[in-house]
Amino acid sequence: MLYGFHGRILHVDLTNNTLEVETPDEHFYRKYMGGSAIGLYYALKLIPKGADPLGPENVMVFAVGPMTGAPISGQSRLAVTAKSPLTGAIGDSQSGGYFPAELKFAGFDAIVVKGKADHPVYLWIHDGEAEIRDASHLWGKVTGEVEDLIKEELGEKKLQILQVGPAGEKGVRFAALINMANRANGRTGMGAVMGSKNLKAIVVKGSSKWRPKVADPKKLRELSKWGVEHLESSDSAGLALLGTAEIVVSQSKGGGLPTRNWESGYFEGAERISGERMYNEILKERDTCYGCIIRCKRVVEVKEGPYKVDPRYGGPEYETLATFGAYCGVDNLEAVAYANQICNMYGMDTISCGATIAWAMDCFERGLITTEDTGGIELRFGNADAMVKMTEMIARREGFGDILAEGSARAAQIIGRGTEERLATVKGQEMPAHMPHVKRSLGLIYAVNPFGADHQSSEHDPAYKAYPERMATLDLKDPVSRLVLNGEKVKFAVRTQWFYSAMDTVAVCQFVYGPAWQLYDSLQLVEALRAVTGWNVSLYELEEVGRRRLNMLRAFNAREGIGRDQDKLPKRFFKEALKGGKSDGIKLDEEELERAKDMYYAMNVWDVETGMPTRAALESVSLQWVADLLGL
Amino acid sequence: MLYGFHGRILHVDLTNNTLEVETPDEHFYRKYMGGSAIGLYYALKLIPKGADPLGPENVMVFAVGPMTGAPISGQSRLAVTAKSPLTGAIGDSQSGGYFPAELKFAGFDAIVVKGKADHPVYLWIHDGEAEIRDASHLWGKVTGEVEDLIKEELGEKKLQILQVGPAGEKGVRFAALINMANRANGRTGMGAVMGSKNLKAIVVKGSSKWRPKVADPKKLRELSKWGVEHLESSDSAGLALLGTAEIVVSQSKGGGLPTRNWESGYFEGAERISGERMYNEILKERDTCYGCIIRCKRVVEVKEGPYKVDPRYGGPEYETLATFGAYCGVDNLEAVAYANQICNMYGMDTISCGATIAWAMDCFERGLITTEDTGGIELRFGNADAMVKMTEMIARREGFGDILAEGSARAAQIIGRGTEERLATVKGQEMPAHMPHVKRSLGLIYAVNPFGADHQSSEHDPAYKAYPERMATLDLKDPVSRLVLNGEKVKFAVRTQWFYSAMDTVAVCQFVYGPAWQLYDSLQLVEALRAVTGWNVSLYELEEVGRRRLNMLRAFNAREGIGRDQDKLPKRFFKEALKGGKSDGIKLDEEELERAKDMYYAMNVWDVETGMPTRAALESVSLQWVADLLGL
Repeated sequence: MLYGFHGRILHVDLTNNTLEVETPDEHFYRKYMGGSAIGLYYALKLIPKGADPLGPENVMVFAVGPMTGAPISGQSRLAVTAKSPLTGAIGDSQSGGYFPAELKFAGFDAIVVKGKADHPVYLWIHDGEAEIRDASHLWGKVTGEVEDLIKEELGEKKLQILQVGPAGEKGVRFAALINMANRANGRTGMGAVMGSKNLKAIVVKGSSKWRPKVADPKKLRELSKWGVEHLESSDSAGLALLGTAEIVVSQSKGGGLPTRNWESGYFEGAERISGERMYNEILKERDTCYGCIIRCKRVVEVKEGPYKVDPRYGGPEYETLATFGAYCGVDNLEAVAYANQICNMYGMDTISCGATIAWAMDCFERGLITTEDTGGIELRFGNADAMVKMTEMIARREGFGDILAEGSARAAQIIGRGTEERLATVKGQEMPAHMPHVKRSLGLIYAVNPFGADHQSSEHDPAYKAYPERMATLDLKDPVSRLVLNGEKVKFAVRTQWFYSAMDTVAVCQFVYGPAWQLYDSLQLVEALRAVTGWNVSLYELEEVGRRRLNMLRAFNAREGIGRDQDKLPKRFFKEALKGGKSDGIKLDEEELERAKDMYYAMNVWDVETGMPTRAALESVSLQWVADLLGL
Repeated sequence: MLYGFHGRILHVDLTNNTLEVETPDEHFYRKYMGGSAIGLYYALKLIPKGADPLGPENVMVFAVGPMTGAPISGQSRLAVTAKSPLTGAIGDSQSGGYFPAELKFAGFDAIVVKGKADHPVYLWIHDGEAEIRDASHLWGKVTGEVEDLIKEELGEKKLQILQVGPAGEKGVRFAALINMANRANGRTGMGAVMGSKNLKAIVVKGSSKWRPKVADPKKLRELSKWGVEHLESSDSAGLALLGTAEIVVSQSKGGGLPTRNWESGYFEGAERISGERMYNEILKERDTCYGCIIRCKRVVEVKEGPYKVDPRYGGPEYETLATFGAYCGVDNLEAVAYANQICNMYGMDTISCGATIAWAMDCFERGLITTEDTGGIELRFGNADAMVKMTEMIARREGFGDILAEGSARAAQIIGRGTEERLATVKGQEMPAHMPHVKRSLGLIYAVNPFGADHQSSEHDPAYKAYPERMATLDLKDPVSRLVLNGEKVKFAVRTQWFYSAMDTVAVCQFVYGPAWQLYDSLQLVEALRAVTGWNVSLYELEEVGRRRLNMLRAFNAREGIGRDQDKLPKRFFKEALKGGKSDGIKLDEEELERAKDMYYAMNVWDVETGMPTRAALESVSLQWVADLLGL
């Protein structure tokens, strides 16, 4: 008996307009466990080497996990996998909302989309069945409008829609997938891939008949109840009050808020874009994902002034406040909230979008980009109007925005003039708002993460000291300062990367489950997973599931020739010291990073020279077929 | 609050006649966890490189674990660690009985013995205190007699004695430590080390005051109760009925009972030395270790005939029946039981002793050894009298026994004449009675195990298919035939070796806890450990504890220059096919083994060429200090 899953995966061939349902066995589910690993399973099998990320040969996988839809917090998560048009490497992105649970309740564990439709279409999925429908009338429309039109057309209000906005249609390389008009699979340009397939949306409607059974409902109820009782006393309580924005001020005070395109870790305007200010001045309500008690989502409203914000598009996360705010030197909260709205309307990743604009501002300040490029816009740090304008221009690929829509790394190649010196990207993906300067293991993960710089692929350094008991459970017992990157710290990076990788595979939220500050600790996640699936799951198994996914990510890249040579941080981080604040004078040490990479690859049983998986590594996570695929 | 331990380790310096108590902190205990890893911690720190195993510079560590003495089955285990006089590599050996729990109740977690006394002494430990006492009057006496004399001398009946017999005094290289006159730390010659220190015995007497507290007694009681309720339906039930001897017949039928010095896997006399026959004809009672419901120990009695057996010396285990029986072609159960008694009286490892005699018989049959060597004894396969006689001569180092007391590998060097061609040893240690020919992952572990061929350092191949649900917990989900040694099977070897290594560290019995057929599965061991210690222990942590110990074992050897070049099976296993029975015609494939070793070292992050730990491997188990020690 398979609990937690349907044992049904939908295969959609848009080129041939066909639908098929695959029914894998329990072994498949226990081995790949859900989410991103199921995505990678199909990505490795179905995407040919050298595929054009925006061509019909790219394959997209949308996958949920065993816990998705179960009555406990933090389980409504969707993993999307495809080759990334932003990085040329594997693309991988997660989101929350109600869509993931609704997809499960509609009767599927995953959707695999191949080919390209000859006209805009959307998928309509309910009661275990699927249909490809015309979407010509939806093309070019922003997400909120499309939500309304589809609900009207299908005569259903209670359905969930995952869609690409106009940015994805136009191939903005960091285009996102948006659900509920305010949740995003933001990173690695998955929106551009879906747009390239002429797939406007996936619409799902669940029914109680299609709820997968939970093996031990009593145990799961106990865990849920425990969560309710312990939320207030947990470190997740801050998220409930202020959302992810709770850390804006502390990041800046600690010298860890990237400011003016990473010139400084201190932003003098931090208070003005803080979670506290958002809470006091523009918060309309706190929103949540299916079944989750945390309620970390912000909904903001601005009724007056130049930047009116419609609450249907949610509100900015910490990353968004940082990238459109501190990165750009902008301390205008309303402007940042408005830029966030544009991203949710047009479907763009707020991190890459804000960071790309910040990079352009940096170049502008240095005269590497001028008003001739920008069409007269004074693209200076602190210019909120220019930031907003540029966000709109990118979304529509207008003027200079058409170049920035390629992402900062490609834009630098197009523009030249030394603009690439100012990049803050890894593998072509813009860096999120946590600074390797003050979190050295995170810096290592930024460098080596297969889909580019990512802040949710490992635990951040300060947790090692702050949560000794929880860390010990992962055999992390010898805490090291966040400013040190020695072998023990590499171990911390590796072990927590595996665990985060497992969370993206099981498809649960990293704000609810995790090895450090989260409401539920790593062993409680294991308990929850056991309650749902009935499997005798262990934390060991879970770490291995995470390691399996990581090997699949690296294997995909290895096939594309991407290895150690692309695992690097921006050169300027080693040359230019940060200016001001608590991290004043700090720069990174390239030798330290290279030594750490040596150890990181070795600990993963990968080839130290190339950074690519060895047969031994792949066999050690039972991926013989992947070793064969790579010709190892 | 430290549960499960005292936080007290006794340091004994025999040269200087001093005693000290060290009080490590909780971090030390959680990191090294007990047993063998605590032993290795001191072995690495205190034994100088190149030390003579029989010299005063060797250090012996006797360590129990957190669960030792707690009210649950399978916890009364003692790990003994020192440099081995048999192999020149690290020595490591476990035993059960009542001694381990009694040591705990006497107030210590471990005893570290340095130096050499200038006359025979014994240690007397009770109520958290220790005393070095004269043992001159005990020297040369057999174990049963020493038990009686010490009890009389101390005026105590309820005490436990761990001692070396005359064999250990005389430096028989496979001398054992004996407790209760019928339990042995058998392997790797720990008895010779203790004898070389003039340390005749360690005598312990516990008291209720010195019982360490259990963190969650209710949970532990539940687990104990579960064990009582499930023993009969578990695969441990066979052990309860017939002891380890239960497998004699099935091993032979499956072609896996080493016969006539590994000429065949089938022994035509198997039924006559079987557990069933022992049960029906000579069993006096079933014995057990402290607090254990399994009762796997045999006590036999033979009142008539040439081989009278005294029940105080217990009864033969499977390994003993195999080595003195099948290895030697002897099907006389009474003779085997008598040889077992000699080993327990004089303190010798039955495996190495029986296997060494079998090797000599093989050489005798081939004319490589003659009656001139043996002093007239017809040392032929099947000659029970000769087998018994030779056992006595080894124990007393008389005549040809003086040469065989060196172990078969050294004896072959002394004798020459091609006798080394007939060896069945790894790193100089005689192979136990499970055949790599029909258990390929076990063959790999025989080759690579740091203290020589060992059958209790990993799960045996058939378990992979037979216990799929329990194996899945260790992420072993793709079972492979026992005749195959591919990458997946190497993974099985590695993962279960880590787990068994953890069990020797936590110091629990592998007949009660384990990842396959055992009464309690791997996750129940974790639960028990959590209940006892109060630590938030995970299976992941436990695997890492096991991996840490394995790295310490390899690191000790690496310092001695022992690596891949000594990780090899006897050459003849690749050349000579087995004869008769189900494994007729099977030989091992050297290339297969070498490929498997490549993968085994890689999966352990060790240097593939040398088989030695890398800095990355040591750092990945938080052993920076060991990497420093090795100058990596």
